[in-house]
Parts: sequence; structure tokens; C-alpha cells
Amino acid sequence: MTGSLVVVGTGPGKPELMTPATQAALAAATDLVGYGPYLDRVPMLRADQCRHASDNRVELDRARHALALAASGRRVAVVSGGDPGVFAMAAAIFEAVEAGDPAWRTLDIRVEPGVTAMLAAAAEVGAPLGGDFCAISLSDNLKDWTTIERRLKAAAEADFVIALYNPASKARPHQLGEAFTLLRSIKAGETPVLFVRAAGSADSEVVATTLANADTSVADMRTLVIVGASTTRQIGRWIYTPRGAKS
Amino acid sequence: MTGSLVVVGTGPGKPELMTPATQAALAAATDLVGYGPYLDRVPMLRADQCRHASDNRVELDRARHALALAASGRRVAVVSGGDPGVFAMAAAIFEAVEAGDPAWRTLDIRVEPGVTAMLAAAAEVGAPLGGDFCAISLSDNLKDWTTIERRLKAAAEADFVIALYNPASKARPHQLGEAFTLLRSIKAGETPVLFVRAAGSADSEVVATTLANADTSVADMRTLVIVGASTTRQIGRWIYTPRGAKS
Repeated sequence: MTGSLVVVGTGPGKPELMTPATQAALAAATDLVGYGPYLDRVPMLRADQCRHASDNRVELDRARHALALAASGRRVAVVSGGDPGVFAMAAAIFEAVEAGDPAWRTLDIRVEPGVTAMLAAAAEVGAPLGGDFCAISLSDNLKDWTTIERRLKAAAEADFVIALYNPASKARPHQLGEAFTLLRSIKAGETPVLFVRAAGSADSEVVATTLANADTSVADMRTLVIVGASTTRQIGRWIYTPRGAKS
Repeated sequence: MTGSLVVVGTGPGKPELMTPATQAALAAATDLVGYGPYLDRVPMLRADQCRHASDNRVELDRARHALALAASGRRVAVVSGGDPGVFAMAAAIFEAVEAGDPAWRTLDIRVEPGVTAMLAAAAEVGAPLGGDFCAISLSDNLKDWTTIERRLKAAAEADFVIALYNPASKARPHQLGEAFTLLRSIKAGETPVLFVRAAGSADSEVVATTLANADTSVADMRTLVIVGASTTRQIGRWIYTPRGAKS
């Protein structure tokens, strides 16, 4: 028996936002490996399927465990939320491959794309990502805060729409405020700002405000923050960014 | 009868990458409006469903047509490829609402998220979007080339992974070359570059190269280009960007 490893994303939460390709990959797996709350989104698909739930912030341990299972002959699905390639498990798997057992390099590994949080958040409010945009994780567990500040500054000065992942956690309550202080020094106060909590799930909540008025304390680890470009605007109950503007 | 309008994305091409929510929205529609090749991805769902196919590059005409149909009481689905909020029809719909009949502002409009091309392209090669990244459309139909150059420069200097949508067309054969000349002046020659044509479809093709060696003539309108960050690397047959790097 030859093992395999597929990295999937459940999408943002609602079952109807999980792709059929991901559903099929989950149904074919003998072992599911992931952060507990993401595994909980997967219905029981086979009586003989093992679930290996782990805490958050142990991505590399989880990746090594999944690779070892696949190397032993199991058909493993590594389960992320959203899209597995965006601030999620796919990169952690390849980090573990690079640093691990050379035999892992010949494993049958593939990645299934999914609907990432910023797309679900954008769809709930209109089309705020309608122009050029960037995605930045505010977590400094794995990179320096100075790198994050440099990217925020560049994105604001070049007038990208900015999607912020991992905006706040109990261990990092103040960084989103620092990020907004930086953004306010560059962008107009009336710039639309969206806090979308649990985007694309049954209990999603939207706070639409402006850069000047934004209260960053509403954000937690389940919040996706979108900061508009200079052209982002409100029309009726929708927020959108025009596709472009010729000068 | 009250009309409605839903903007959906078919995903990158394979039917199994279209979300169940989008399938349901398509099945409920009386009218499908979209660019012909995207409509062709939708199987016949109801005998009484009208299809309104149009050429590319007439997005605003198409948006107005869809809104007028919804205002007349039809249940309209506007069909994009990928995710409708990323360089696609959702923003065009809201542009048309803003400039059009005031009654359109009270229409029942919603957007369903989908799998956008860069996620499908990334999944085919590993996890190149594993760090902070940005998405830029190279089309200057709707924005100035100077704006595009400013964003390319900012993204390269701040070391984002860069996804380029609409990299080339018959009307714009030279812009991708100009963009690469700019990127080569900032980024290292060994930076990984990916040309993924028809990502997430049955006939996808990947060219993995470097910034120094990239031949931009391989790109056309169906190609998604990913230019790595300084940390993006190859391991085995995969390209990935580590989630971060502490200095």
C-alpha cells in the first residue's frame, strides 16, 4: 500500500462553500489531521477514518505527524480552514518536507484549493477587492513586526486594498492598533474599513466603518479586516472598489 | 414576482472546484448573464433558463443588462470565472448600480465567493502564496500603466509574493515584458517565477522558471503569473513560500 497526503481547506465555514473536490479528498482519506475546530467542520465520512486533532500554533508538529502517517502507507488529508495555501497548512507541510526525512520528498503530495476568508468576507459586503489588493498576516509569531510594518506602509502608499489576516489574538492585543496608527498616517480618514467576523459561516458579523472611526478592539482571531483603497466606496448597503480609474 | 441578482464565479474551470452554493444559485436562476466561455462551463440546469452570452470587455453593458432583467422581475445569475469579486463582474455590477437607475439600489443583490485563479495556480505547484502576497491586474484598459508600475515597484520592494492577473493579450503584448524589466531591477534573478495556464482546469500547464530566465511570451489571457518573494524556494517538485522568517 502506498501512502499519500492531500492538503485541503474546508472553506470559510458553511458546508456549501467547501468544493466538491475537497469533499471527495476527505471521503477518500483514512486519516484526517488538523486543528480541532477545522476537523469539527468535516462530517463523519467513513467508519474507519482516524481523526488526529491538535491545538493551534503547532503547525510544524502537525505537518510532521501527517507526513509520517503518509510515509507509513496511510491516505492522509491535512485539514485547514479556508484555502490551505493562504496562511495555512500547505506551506507548513513543505517546510516540514524540506527539514525532514529525505524520503518525504518522494511522497504523493497534493494541494486542493478552497475559498479563502478574504473572498468570503468581500462577498458579504459587495466587492471591496474589485481592484488590486494584498493580503498580510499580522501575526508576528513567524516574522518580524518591522517586516509587517514595511509591507503595510508599501501597500498603503501604492493604494492597494489591504486584507489583514490574523489581526489580533490574546497574545497580541495591541498590534492591530499599531497597524491602524500607521495606516492613518498615510491613508484618508474616510477610507472604508470592514471587520468581518466568521465570514462565510452561519454566524458571520460585519462592522462597516472608516479608518478614522475604526475601533480595533472588535477584532479577534476569527476576524478578517479589509481596509479600502482611495477609490473604495459605499453605494446603498454595499461596499465596492471600482475595477480601475483612468486619470 | 420580485427579481433578484446573484453574482457567482464558476471557479477556475474544473466542475469539482465550483462550490455547492454557486451550483444552487445557478440552478435557481431564470437567466444567466456572462461572457460566453464562462457560460459554457455551466451545465443545462433548467429547461426554462435563458442564457445571455456576451463578448469579453463589455462588462458594464453586461452589468446593466443583468440589472435591468432583475428589475423586471427575473432571477438573474451573473456568471464570472474564478471568484466574482477578483478582477471580475461583481465590481462591474456595483459600478452600474452607482451610475444607473436609482431603483437598482433597492434590488436584492448578493455575491457568492469562489476559487480565484491564483489559489488554483498556487495549489498546482505547492504553496507559493504561503507568505504575504498581492494580486495585480496588468490590464490598463481601466487604469493607468503608471499606477500598475507603482504597485509592482512597491510590492517588489516590500517583498510580497506577486500574482499577476491578465498578464497579456493580443492588444497588450508588451506589458508583461515591461513589468518583468521593472521587477528584475529590484528582485534577485533566481526568484522563482511560475506561469500557470488554465490553472484548475483539465488542460492546465505549468512553466516553472526564474525571474532571470523567464520568457514572458509564454503568457496569454488564460495565464496566471506568480513571482516569488525572496524566501520562495523549490523543494523536490514543489515551489513554496515559508510562512515567515524571523531575522
